[in-house]
Amino acid sequence: MKHVLSLFLFFAITFGHSQSIESPSGKIAVNFKLAGDGQPTYSVNYKSKAVVLESALGIKLKDKPALDANFEFVGSKTATFNESWKPVLGEQANIVNHYNELTVSLVQKGTHVKINIIFRAFDEGVAFRYDFPKQADLNYFIISDEVTQFNLTENNKVFWIPGDFDSNEYEYNETKLSEIDNSKINMNNGIGVKSIPGKYMVQTPLMMKSPTGLYVNIFEAAVVNYPVMHLNVDVNNYKLTAQLVPNAIGDKAYLQTPCVSPWRTIMISNDARDVVGSKMILNLNEPSKIEDTSWIKPMKYVGIWWEMHVGKSTWDYAGSQNATNFADAPKASGKHGATTENTKRYIDFAAKNGFDGVLVEGWNVGWEDWNGNWKEEVFDFTTPYPDFDIAALSAYAKSKNVKMIMHHETSGSVANYERHLDRAFENMVKYNYPAVKTGYVGKIIPRGEFHDGQTMVNHFNFVARRAADYKLMINSHESSRPTGYGRTYPNYVAAEAARGTEFNAWSIGNPPMHETILPFTRLLGGPMDYTPGIFEIKMSYYDKNKTEQVHTTLAKQLALYVTMYSPIQMAADLLENYEKYPDAFQFMKDVAVDWDESKYLQAEPGDYLTIARKAKGKESWFLGAITDENARKSEIKLDFLTKGKKYKAIIYEDAKDADWKNNPIAYKIKTMLVRSKSKINLNLAPGGGTAISFEPIN
Amino acid sequence: MKHVLSLFLFFAITFGHSQSIESPSGKIAVNFKLAGDGQPTYSVNYKSKAVVLESALGIKLKDKPALDANFEFVGSKTATFNESWKPVLGEQANIVNHYNELTVSLVQKGTHVKINIIFRAFDEGVAFRYDFPKQADLNYFIISDEVTQFNLTENNKVFWIPGDFDSNEYEYNETKLSEIDNSKINMNNGIGVKSIPGKYMVQTPLMMKSPTGLYVNIFEAAVVNYPVMHLNVDVNNYKLTAQLVPNAIGDKAYLQTPCVSPWRTIMISNDARDVVGSKMILNLNEPSKIEDTSWIKPMKYVGIWWEMHVGKSTWDYAGSQNATNFADAPKASGKHGATTENTKRYIDFAAKNGFDGVLVEGWNVGWEDWNGNWKEEVFDFTTPYPDFDIAALSAYAKSKNVKMIMHHETSGSVANYERHLDRAFENMVKYNYPAVKTGYVGKIIPRGEFHDGQTMVNHFNFVARRAADYKLMINSHESSRPTGYGRTYPNYVAAEAARGTEFNAWSIGNPPMHETILPFTRLLGGPMDYTPGIFEIKMSYYDKNKTEQVHTTLAKQLALYVTMYSPIQMAADLLENYEKYPDAFQFMKDVAVDWDESKYLQAEPGDYLTIARKAKGKESWFLGAITDENARKSEIKLDFLTKGKKYKAIIYEDAKDADWKNNPIAYKIKTMLVRSKSKINLNLAPGGGTAISFEPIN
Repeated sequence: MKHVLSLFLFFAITFGHSQSIESPSGKIAVNFKLAGDGQPTYSVNYKSKAVVLESALGIKLKDKPALDANFEFVGSKTATFNESWKPVLGEQANIVNHYNELTVSLVQKGTHVKINIIFRAFDEGVAFRYDFPKQADLNYFIISDEVTQFNLTENNKVFWIPGDFDSNEYEYNETKLSEIDNSKINMNNGIGVKSIPGKYMVQTPLMMKSPTGLYVNIFEAAVVNYPVMHLNVDVNNYKLTAQLVPNAIGDKAYLQTPCVSPWRTIMISNDARDVVGSKMILNLNEPSKIEDTSWIKPMKYVGIWWEMHVGKSTWDYAGSQNATNFADAPKASGKHGATTENTKRYIDFAAKNGFDGVLVEGWNVGWEDWNGNWKEEVFDFTTPYPDFDIAALSAYAKSKNVKMIMHHETSGSVANYERHLDRAFENMVKYNYPAVKTGYVGKIIPRGEFHDGQTMVNHFNFVARRAADYKLMINSHESSRPTGYGRTYPNYVAAEAARGTEFNAWSIGNPPMHETILPFTRLLGGPMDYTPGIFEIKMSYYDKNKTEQVHTTLAKQLALYVTMYSPIQMAADLLENYEKYPDAFQFMKDVAVDWDESKYLQAEPGDYLTIARKAKGKESWFLGAITDENARKSEIKLDFLTKGKKYKAIIYEDAKDADWKNNPIAYKIKTMLVRSKSKINLNLAPGGGTAISFEPIN
Repeated sequence: MKHVLSLFLFFAITFGHSQSIESPSGKIAVNFKLAGDGQPTYSVNYKSKAVVLESALGIKLKDKPALDANFEFVGSKTATFNESWKPVLGEQANIVNHYNELTVSLVQKGTHVKINIIFRAFDEGVAFRYDFPKQADLNYFIISDEVTQFNLTENNKVFWIPGDFDSNEYEYNETKLSEIDNSKINMNNGIGVKSIPGKYMVQTPLMMKSPTGLYVNIFEAAVVNYPVMHLNVDVNNYKLTAQLVPNAIGDKAYLQTPCVSPWRTIMISNDARDVVGSKMILNLNEPSKIEDTSWIKPMKYVGIWWEMHVGKSTWDYAGSQNATNFADAPKASGKHGATTENTKRYIDFAAKNGFDGVLVEGWNVGWEDWNGNWKEEVFDFTTPYPDFDIAALSAYAKSKNVKMIMHHETSGSVANYERHLDRAFENMVKYNYPAVKTGYVGKIIPRGEFHDGQTMVNHFNFVARRAADYKLMINSHESSRPTGYGRTYPNYVAAEAARGTEFNAWSIGNPPMHETILPFTRLLGGPMDYTPGIFEIKMSYYDKNKTEQVHTTLAKQLALYVTMYSPIQMAADLLENYEKYPDAFQFMKDVAVDWDESKYLQAEPGDYLTIARKAKGKESWFLGAITDENARKSEIKLDFLTKGKKYKAIIYEDAKDADWKNNPIAYKIKTMLVRSKSKINLNLAPGGGTAISFEPIN
């Protein structure tokens, strides 16, 4: 751990309305400038080339003068920060946090309101935030808008999803900035609740590539007590403006000084691997507030879940999902998934195959009538169905050394969940569940709130903090996307918060390029519970009339265990499907979920991604390579392996004639001895991938 | 217990679109009629005289056809109900519930939606509600408006307060219906949060007196999962229309069949005593859902509270109430009220004088910065100030056989309170507090919600239910006004929910007629924690510059213990003030708070009220007589006393020259022997009263 902090103070009221810092390497520079009317602005250069032109900074307030002009420069200070820290769970054992910092202090004429704007320049990008110090002239305030702009220079290629206050579960569009238009995309995409406020609104992280090959990513970090930022795109001038998510009455954020905004981030590199491997978002969050983190553990798990998606079983006991209430005593349909017997089967399988945990959805009363009607009192999170013997299963799992993963679907009724939260968590402790998958399907209650508003951001963070009181881990689904808060509350181990595997079961699904984009976008803020590992890829396997399928080959499903980082990683398919392909399943049994090192070998958003990772505390390495709809051949060097060591490499790759659409399951497995000087040829089928395990020999 | 139920079923689709029932005595009749366009209507007669002319019934729905026309008559049934039941705590040991009932079943052309309208005719009034049965054509629905009208016949005298979605803490206006106008009243009245949606909006209970001397009261009962109903007055035509309180996005209520609306009630009598003594509102609520009610007990209590209102001490530790947060470690000001030492003094006093409980406000961290800024995270309801030793005080109170009353001020941040509710209640159980006074000062969070909306109605009821899990009693302040839910959850023992004594300490206060109206309005729905018993009436006693005062004589303060029913009744003044007037204080020591019988001897809203009550399980009687700003003399018969028994009557009355304004404390006490045949002269000073205790001799 190294920590160098140097301070330079400038008192410069009478001179100097422009100031810059550079990243440690000097590649990236950010410049602050007060415009003529006292409007704060910034611009960003990469290797002396403008990437963000002079762009407005500021905040508009409700019932108070806007903080976006009439500012005077009071002073500034710069600092350098360089440390490394150890995440509890992560892609690497040590994370370097190295940046130069500029703090500009401003005071507004007339109102006397003081604000600071803090800039940090890292080697892979720039971040800035608004800082509102405690002061007589600003105590409580309500943000009505943030005027922050990102004034881009070129008509970049963009990987975008519509700005939607309630859902981030879209497939990506790959267009020019000038072609962004929400009215032109297919909305028959399986998303239940949509709240898109405008044609040109997009979400962050927004991954772009300039015509000259520069990778630019706009995102935010440490969204705490603040709404999510979407972006409104001026498609003619490539100017992006912050669009904060409102609450029920149109306000954006309620704050009290001293306080800060989230960090607005711009990553820039001419190498896509710098973006996908960046830990900048994590670095911009506060260190862990949990002192004893020994109970936070990685988990590989199976669960009663995909069988409901493919129609084999149901969440609800009665199998109808339309009864008015449970008091009518529905009869068991025989299709209920979360039975004691079925759960035991999963526990046995987990124990036999070395999996840590078993998730069970549909275990609790309420699924008869839970979705789509803005119903407030759905679940109580403690009452199991009559055919789910929670006490017996808890004991059984313990006897097999398997951990149970609880499921709390809120149906968006957050008020109800918060009322029951302590009881729900006490119930988990009572039955020895160390982790919970939460769900937020449906319109939010308190009614009028959105999934991405300040109220809900606070809720997700609150649940993590409250769970820490009980030493419980959180994996949230349908939440707002993480922005690194998992550094601060490392028990918030994962989230879905993007379009996951499930959409493939019953909608147009996720195109083959989907997983080549997510690591450049959604995963920058924290691990995603993507639920890979589907072996029976076509839904016609379950019902010959179905045409849906996972847009993948089987080998690619294996590779996702490496490319889609999560310390809580599911083997999502039915147990019987794994039993049919034990040789391929071996990779899922072997692969780690927590890592000492990660090497980003090949990366191009929307096209391909190859990552190698070293298992935490072991000498084993695992490699995942994936491609989009195009077949891809390449040669990779194994120079990440320890020099002088011999490894047995087991290569799980697409068969020669494999193809995500016509022949997705075809794979082949080969074994070879390799060293750090060896090379391996990767042959990825259309929509395919390769997974490799490297076990040291002797 | 007597329970007679008789059913008559009519199948009358082809004939009969008008139907009536009468009250058991035949005095009151309600008539249902389908108007020409299939609009349901009703009218009400008293002794064959129209009191409510044909008035619209119906509900408007969001995104669905309105349920206010195009109905066809399907059938009807009538029933008679007569039982008596025992409230856990109450004004009388037995309550008779006797009514005739008419259920009209309707179906709407086109939509096929079925509704029932249920009418009940009691001898003191009429009630009706909408009943939405479970049906294929109506499952979930959102009420956008209720069209219920009360089409009155005359320009009645009205005791009204402005229709306000957030506050019911107004003084009453006494005008003609035609003179109702919110723009003309004094809004400099000490109320912090006001949300008045229109000039002609008034609240219920609405007490009226017709030019011919008929007393008419419009209210509602069993407001459960529904917003509060206010009334919009057509001041020219005396037509009142239901105005439901909206939520943050303008919706009124979210319902799912089967469900019912609250009862809309119209009490009618030519004797005001029938209204003030009516138990109709309680009768219209469901019986107790708490099986073992043995832990629900009446309480007379003192507390650390009025000393803050008069400026002697402060709620907060630092005495500033404007610090930004407690982390700044404010220093004790020496003025903090809720200290261990001061609390012991109150416990000692309670023990010595036979009081059951001690309330302590300002015991918990948060009061530095709690009010007026829509702040979400204020209190955690468990962390005491450093000078309040909760464990030691709990033990001390127990040793003295005194019960501690907890205080939970939410500052309107209900979301925060619900998040902490289980912990707050566990804390109470841990420290042996059997009751809690809750507070809702300030704008509601979830933001955009109102105190009187469905969300908050549900909250207040939820808190009562959750408290029952812990065997705790609730006394809510700044809540929506009760509508009899205390019958269903008898641990919801009292509420403030009207303008209480506190306003006298720092605002224009409550005029002398105030307490002569509340029993005809606010108290119909349940007990009020009015906090009487102020002996040092003028605030100049504490600060010679202050002109505020309680608008009362001291004797009237004693009488309020009888006229303002509450099973949890405070002796609100400072202990040292009681010690100065031990002879007068004796009445407060003697008076009961739970009753076997109540006799309403004299009553005229806005003018005077005399009630005699028999203590629960004892032969003692207590009488309270109060007047408005006018002196009043009368003679009362004591025929309520048990025949043949002799009683010692101690009469606490205004001194000859007493006057609420110029000589409020002057009282005299006389003792006499009386029997049921005796008469007593009451001599009430302007703003005065008389309190009498009757103790049987041998």
